[in-house]
Amino acid sequence: MADKVGVALLVGAGDAIGAAVARRFAEGGYKVCIARRDAAKSQKVCLFNAGSNVSKPLLETTEKLFFKAWELACYAGFLVGREAARYMLKRGHGTILFTGATASIRGSKGFAAFSSAKFGLRAVAQAMARELGPKNIHVVHLLIDAGVDSEAIHQRMKAATGIDAKEIPADSLTKTRSIADAYWFAHHQARDGWTHELDLRPSVEKW
Amino acid sequence: MADKVGVALLVGAGDAIGAAVARRFAEGGYKVCIARRDAAKSQKVCLFNAGSNVSKPLLETTEKLFFKAWELACYAGFLVGREAARYMLKRGHGTILFTGATASIRGSKGFAAFSSAKFGLRAVAQAMARELGPKNIHVVHLLIDAGVDSEAIHQRMKAATGIDAKEIPADSLTKTRSIADAYWFAHHQARDGWTHELDLRPSVEKW
Amino acid sequence: MADKVGVALLVGAGDAIGAAVARRFAEGGYKVCIARRDAAKSQKVCLFNAGSNVSKPLLETTEKLFFKAWELACYAGFLVGREAARYMLKRGHGTILFTGATASIRGSKGFAAFSSAKFGLRAVAQAMARELGPKNIHVVHLLIDAGVDSEAIHQRMKAATGIDAKEIPADSLTKTRSIADAYWFAHHQARDGWTHELDLRPSVEKW
Amino acid sequence: MADKVGVALLVGAGDAIGAAVARRFAEGGYKVCIARRDAAKSQKVCLFNAGSNVSKPLLETTEKLFFKAWELACYAGFLVGREAARYMLKRGHGTILFTGATASIRGSKGFAAFSSAKFGLRAVAQAMARELGPKNIHVVHLLIDAGVDSEAIHQRMKAATGIDAKEIPADSLTKTRSIADAYWFAHHQARDGWTHELDLRPSVEKW
Repeated sequence: MADKVGVALLVGAGDAIGAAVARRFAEGGYKVCIARRDAAKSQKVCLFNAGSNVSKPLLETTEKLFFKAWELACYAGFLVGREAARYMLKRGHGTILFTGATASIRGSKGFAAFSSAKFGLRAVAQAMARELGPKNIHVVHLLIDAGVDSEAIHQRMKAATGIDAKEIPADSLTKTRSIADAYWFAHHQARDGWTHELDLRPSVEKW
Repeated sequence: MADKVGVALLVGAGDAIGAAVARRFAEGGYKVCIARRDAAKSQKVCLFNAGSNVSKPLLETTEKLFFKAWELACYAGFLVGREAARYMLKRGHGTILFTGATASIRGSKGFAAFSSAKFGLRAVAQAMARELGPKNIHVVHLLIDAGVDSEAIHQRMKAATGIDAKEIPADSLTKTRSIADAYWFAHHQARDGWTHELDLRPSVEKW
Repeated sequence: MADKVGVALLVGAGDAIGAAVARRFAEGGYKVCIARRDAAKSQKVCLFNAGSNVSKPLLETTEKLFFKAWELACYAGFLVGREAARYMLKRGHGTILFTGATASIRGSKGFAAFSSAKFGLRAVAQAMARELGPKNIHVVHLLIDAGVDSEAIHQRMKAATGIDAKEIPADSLTKTRSIADAYWFAHHQARDGWTHELDLRPSVEKW
Repeated sequence: MADKVGVALLVGAGDAIGAAVARRFAEGGYKVCIARRDAAKSQKVCLFNAGSNVSKPLLETTEKLFFKAWELACYAGFLVGREAARYMLKRGHGTILFTGATASIRGSKGFAAFSSAKFGLRAVAQAMARELGPKNIHVVHLLIDAGVDSEAIHQRMKAATGIDAKEIPADSLTKTRSIADAYWFAHHQARDGWTHELDLRPSVEKW
């Protein structure tokens, strides 16, 4: 790589995982570009999660909710992945990292919409990994089987259970830095030994 | 059930699997209703497959193709499943059967669109099974890991390889009747022992 | 098959699943042979379960327990399967059915020994299915993700929770007849559409 | 950790993966202890592989082969893991890393013995991870879905295909260093974000 500067493009980066990944790659000397929806207009969200991960009984799962979940958590991943691939194929190398969740491998009760989208994104990651791997583009799917230690989760917990962030047992939520470290690790693997899927959860998590 | 007549509603039933399932349930004394897109306007297709299962390199996978695959193989399944559930919840019982494929569990090279949709449908089936099972609605996902012995496959094979239907080794394609038998079996399982996923492939298949 | 009589050999058949499978195949006109360990000497057990499915903290999991679980739930399956295959290969057809459990796909806390054996048996079933399928021997792995409605379970429940068999909610345990029906179904599938794995659980089961 | 020195105990370390892992941890300042069978008496082997990964048709898979595969690839893992856990539970922390293979998740034709053992080891890893995680012991299962760039593989390839090590395309075998880096990464994860399974394969691998 010599004197070349690496570039990290984060699409849909939010204040939690996205910000931590940005920091991690910036610390590592990368030029970091962040693309996100207008934080002023909508709430501050990660494009790939975007409130689409709510639980709803089947009969309350509207067409709109089902479509939105797919659009944000699956379709956007395909679009961005395809564009990234177009660019990387010309350069002859690159890493594309998708963020999965428990819902990527388990269709739980109440999660028809979100799971469907996350399962779909995982398929995109697999198909891309198999096609692009031999062309030196590394596609990774990270399974975050965890609550992420973020402002959003704190607020949701507070609202749902009354538990304050300070009372949450240490290490029971995954820190965004830990996720960013996994991204960093995956991106730096040698071409002869690539990880295509890795899970991530707190030591105390039931799974 | 006494003198009550069972009703089988087939949504998106085509000339292959759909027709065989219709025959199987009719033989078993069910009243069979078939819903499909206008066969005169479009080609004769199974709603849930609908040409969406084509292989395309990533860069040739258009937005339209990706959306269509999802709409036909995943979204339609959600819509129909939800409506069926609405009806069955009132009656207190029912069986909902989804047809999966190899692409439901494997994102192969070239199948970003179709796999993404089929993964998504599998998530819908799982979420519905977990929510509706305790309410006596049996949701099953059948994994057809096979070429189906149908006119459509014969034509595609002929076009791709020049091999005529008569030359295809016996038992190397799964007969629609075998699939229909699996549907019939799953539908008749006692409530204390339900299958939620079963695979189906020819004895000679590599898997 | 004409006037030929089918033969069902049940190895390690106990009073629950084994007896029900024997009845089902006898009703279907099969000659049924049962091989089991001496019921007078040891407790009445199914060879493939044999009390090996107990939960133990890791540090209490002795070498003997680990070995026994493997010997009964995995090694015996290999030995019997291999002998059955030897015989069936000469005749040119046959079905070999293995009984799996939740522990076949999930290494739960406390189940290092039993899960290890059951995972191992599943591998045997897969390897056999892939080798023997093209030779017309159908190998099936049934995943019984359920408590089985049997005297043994009733007693264990009584001992553990004080709940009497009569108080157990209907349909919350899988009846041996339902399992036997799945065996019967799998055995009668046409060669062009074989199931290699199917799960089975009560409608009310959490999974 | 301050001035404390970490200890890495490698059981069954061979000249390939084991040696590389030893080097990696030594470079990182760890005291490395290696336990292996007498290299003078037997061939130089990794305890957990030990020639047990040979492919055999079912009828040629002897009791001895089946037992040996289990003893070396599964039972030894349980024994060593249990002892390591005993020690780590007293200290209150530790990492236990198991090496898996393609055969850990796929029972391929001809691999009844090896797959059975490797499936079994994966179950041990899962059960240990779930029990020991909350006690701050991190158990990881690495899925090496690759040929490992080692003298043993070179010789086997030469014997099987006549292809010389020099002719093998670069990056088509996973370097032991890449594997060691994954071990190192997993060992250093923060407790709030642990990986329990990760795969590793060359970019050009079909999977």
